[in-house]
Amino acid sequence: MTTDLRAEVEAANTALYEALESADAQRMAALWDESEPDAVVCVHPGWPMLRGRSHVLRSFSAIMANTPYIQFFLTDVQVHVEGSDLGAAAIVTCTENILTAVTETDSAAQTVSTNVFRRRADGWRLQVHHGSPVMGTLEEIDE
Amino acid sequence: MTTDLRAEVEAANTALYEALESADAQRMAALWDESEPDAVVCVHPGWPMLRGRSHVLRSFSAIMANTPYIQFFLTDVQVHVEGSDLGAAAIVTCTENILTAVTETDSAAQTVSTNVFRRRADGWRLQVHHGSPVMGTLEEIDE
Repeated sequence: MTTDLRAEVEAANTALYEALESADAQRMAALWDESEPDAVVCVHPGWPMLRGRSHVLRSFSAIMANTPYIQFFLTDVQVHVEGSDLGAAAIVTCTENILTAVTETDSAAQTVSTNVFRRRADGWRLQVHHGSPVMGTLEEIDE
Repeated sequence: MTTDLRAEVEAANTALYEALESADAQRMAALWDESEPDAVVCVHPGWPMLRGRSHVLRSFSAIMANTPYIQFFLTDVQVHVEGSDLGAAAIVTCTENILTAVTETDSAAQTVSTNVFRRRADGWRLQVHHGSPVMGTLEEIDE
């Protein structure tokens, strides 16, 4: 049961990156929670916080319209599920290794992301996506 | 009831920043979830992802030992609670306006943070802290 739930959450998480890669605004919209639209939050790497489902979807539409090519290689993906009732939260944390053609000088980047999904009647829906740039290695930081 | 829960979560969130301001490692340790220590995750602004309760606490001890002075002014704090059973997740998102004496040239900074708390028998405990640097304004980004 828990294994099934984790697989469901991981599939929902993968769908987020596939929607971005294919610049599919409809698929993107279907991923985000509609039950509590005001609680939807998104932080794009280096950005301030965006609140509200429609504001967040607009930001993704703008990003997808301005990104000729983007590909994500996810590593260190961890899925944590507690509970299976409606409203239960699942947390996915992962490293996003990104290849993109947004700029010519910065075509590869690494970000880390926390994605919070809520269980709704129709499946796991995204409530929070918080991505942030990785600007050093742990070796540099830990010393 | 929901109002009480939100107040409890907001108090737990405030305690995180007070522990940092007072460099109180014991108080910091008491805030983080012990029920699922492997699910504890922390991203300091610009850092890679740190996993596991003990690893995260070590990072805070190192930061507090190397920070002569730090003060947080939280703005745009939003608390979202769904459910009240044990294991329920509460999400706090906020902007951290930081004054610090870590370096002389960079004494003020703005970061955004997503903090995930889980309801345990002894109260709300922190499972995820994801902080990230704000490197532009929404006006610049939205255009």
